[in-house]
Amino acid sequence: MKKDETKIKIPGFRFSGVIAGIKQAKKPDVALIVADRPAKATAVFTTNRLKAAPVLQGQKAIRGGKLRAIVVNSGNANAATGPKGLKNAFATAAAAAQALKISKSEVLVSSTGKIGIQLDVGKIRRALPAAVQGLSAGNFTAAARAIMTTDAFPKWHVVRGKIGGKPFTVAGFGKGAGMIEPHMATMLAYIFTDLDLPVAAMRKAFRSAVDATFNAISVDGDTSTNDTAVLLASGASGIPPLKPGTAPWRAFEKALHEVCQYLAWMMVQDGEGATKIVEVQVRGAKTARSAKKIAYSIARSPLVKTSFFGQDPNWGRVFAAVGYSGETFAPSRVDIFYGPVPLVRRGLPTPVANEARAHKVMKNKSFRVLVELNGGRGESKVWTSDLGYGYVKINAEYRT
Amino acid sequence: MKKDETKIKIPGFRFSGVIAGIKQAKKPDVALIVADRPAKATAVFTTNRLKAAPVLQGQKAIRGGKLRAIVVNSGNANAATGPKGLKNAFATAAAAAQALKISKSEVLVSSTGKIGIQLDVGKIRRALPAAVQGLSAGNFTAAARAIMTTDAFPKWHVVRGKIGGKPFTVAGFGKGAGMIEPHMATMLAYIFTDLDLPVAAMRKAFRSAVDATFNAISVDGDTSTNDTAVLLASGASGIPPLKPGTAPWRAFEKALHEVCQYLAWMMVQDGEGATKIVEVQVRGAKTARSAKKIAYSIARSPLVKTSFFGQDPNWGRVFAAVGYSGETFAPSRVDIFYGPVPLVRRGLPTPVANEARAHKVMKNKSFRVLVELNGGRGESKVWTSDLGYGYVKINAEYRT
Repeated sequence: MKKDETKIKIPGFRFSGVIAGIKQAKKPDVALIVADRPAKATAVFTTNRLKAAPVLQGQKAIRGGKLRAIVVNSGNANAATGPKGLKNAFATAAAAAQALKISKSEVLVSSTGKIGIQLDVGKIRRALPAAVQGLSAGNFTAAARAIMTTDAFPKWHVVRGKIGGKPFTVAGFGKGAGMIEPHMATMLAYIFTDLDLPVAAMRKAFRSAVDATFNAISVDGDTSTNDTAVLLASGASGIPPLKPGTAPWRAFEKALHEVCQYLAWMMVQDGEGATKIVEVQVRGAKTARSAKKIAYSIARSPLVKTSFFGQDPNWGRVFAAVGYSGETFAPSRVDIFYGPVPLVRRGLPTPVANEARAHKVMKNKSFRVLVELNGGRGESKVWTSDLGYGYVKINAEYRT
Repeated sequence: MKKDETKIKIPGFRFSGVIAGIKQAKKPDVALIVADRPAKATAVFTTNRLKAAPVLQGQKAIRGGKLRAIVVNSGNANAATGPKGLKNAFATAAAAAQALKISKSEVLVSSTGKIGIQLDVGKIRRALPAAVQGLSAGNFTAAARAIMTTDAFPKWHVVRGKIGGKPFTVAGFGKGAGMIEPHMATMLAYIFTDLDLPVAAMRKAFRSAVDATFNAISVDGDTSTNDTAVLLASGASGIPPLKPGTAPWRAFEKALHEVCQYLAWMMVQDGEGATKIVEVQVRGAKTARSAKKIAYSIARSPLVKTSFFGQDPNWGRVFAAVGYSGETFAPSRVDIFYGPVPLVRRGLPTPVANEARAHKVMKNKSFRVLVELNGGRGESKVWTSDLGYGYVKINAEYRT
């Protein structure tokens, strides 16, 4: 941990990251997050019908709208582990509650790592004293590191602002969006603020931020069994409770969106051998929902993604992906741009010289593909990675 | 053409394949198929909203339920070509009608190849005299070769049988399922029989066969703008008209299914650098429709497909793909088999030694993954390819 990392502090929260021995390599694999007082809490979980045990525990824990602690273990996803796995998730919460002398109903548990293997709760239990001992406001990034699995780098983002002259913070950390070795990995994100927020409005704002960010990234279109995003508000800033619809509320929403957005981008960037991050923007659809469906149809297409890897302005694949999205549009109105370069205008290709210009755009590590349907006001943005040899290498290797 | 290929004959039909100069390499690129008398005809076209001009022409031509001729050009898909492209498709039909002295409403046109480039109808027109000249009952495979684009091998299948002591034939040829270089390619299939069939029942039987075969293959989940499958019945066998529901009708249906099935398998096998062909079978779903949706969720997952390439029995990815299919099932009832090897029983992993056995199964060029949901009577089979370095290589190269 670099020295300036300890400066990332969110009043009302303490963190630690310790080695419990769940990962085979001796690396931090348990993160503990504690709120000094019960924090307002809301969470969004995976829509996969195969929900891991910690997701079922988390869904129950979040119901009260308040949390005191979060325990995250990496190395074992506690997924496809049946009734015993569920018992283990609740046992983990109980062990943390005991160590922290709080109610077990105020503890949320997350897991990420291998699936189909029972979690050794004893290892977590034995690591908890050190985790409690290590709790510190400056250990934010230590916790961020303890939730990593095959992530190439830790992911966090901090936004600071002022309301009525008083400072506030919204900060979060997260891990990998893709489903990786050995069975699959998970998107986890934990966002913290010292603002005082009404829980219903906070839930709504979080859902909206998650939809526009974590739910707008596509590495391979697969949804994990463990995906979890949690927002905690301590109220420790001393700023009076925020009211939805006011300017301070909008400042909070903006900061929340930014934190989620940066974490989501980092997840795409770290996505399974990716070399590029591409923004797929769809405009002029009948509705925003329709625009998002079309954007995902493009962002998930293996043919589109391999063409990004090959820096090939293969607009035909993009156009075809719009076509098979199942959404209604007029082909003769479609414009397609790569960066600023128009490749399709009103459904027809532009002069072929533009392809060389678009090829240059695609040499960048990051660029935008814009599909303008000219058929309505629906808009959506989705971020995706390319699909190259690195993806195959990471995902095709036989686990030994 | 090998000598015994000329023995593939379907009474009532003649074929030819010629070089028109549409492909840059001097290879056959126009196939002409002629029925001696108007043949009963039915067709299935792409569901992609972006339909190529020849698909729009074909949808019109098929309405009467009878066809005399089919013209297929390869090298240019005549897609994303606007009103001029549509005019060119109809002009191609008119040119063929003139050369054959038949009505242009009895001619169906197909195209496959590059998109976004106007078709040079003059090239087809100039090649038609040679195509008409070359028409022969024994030129079935010459026509099959003329519709190839990046296909590694030509694809045909012939079934012969007897009804009331008299021989009949169902035979077909087709081309590539994937969307390949330079913009995308297309699934085309043409099936011929010398049986006499009532057109409404023939349409129903064809839809059903197409659903179970061509619509059950997934190379990359992308649907082309030009996909077309046509069934023609000449009635030239001399066998009296078949009646649906009778034993002879079932013999026809079985033969039709077999021809479609083999063509579909060959398309998967030839799918963009594929090294394996995997049957994904889902059983015990609530409905057949639900089973098919789950099977496709598995068959299209890039993570599942890369694990096939890596011969890694990564059942977690298969299980997760079932989970995010959007379909309802009970995770605690799910069994997963690779070949005969159970990897998941009642939602839980079997002993880890089974993974080594499953790895052996996956060394085969072809194997089956079975997901038994134990929740109903819905069943479905889907065939898919693996996703390896070859796929990336073929699809990522910059077109020069």
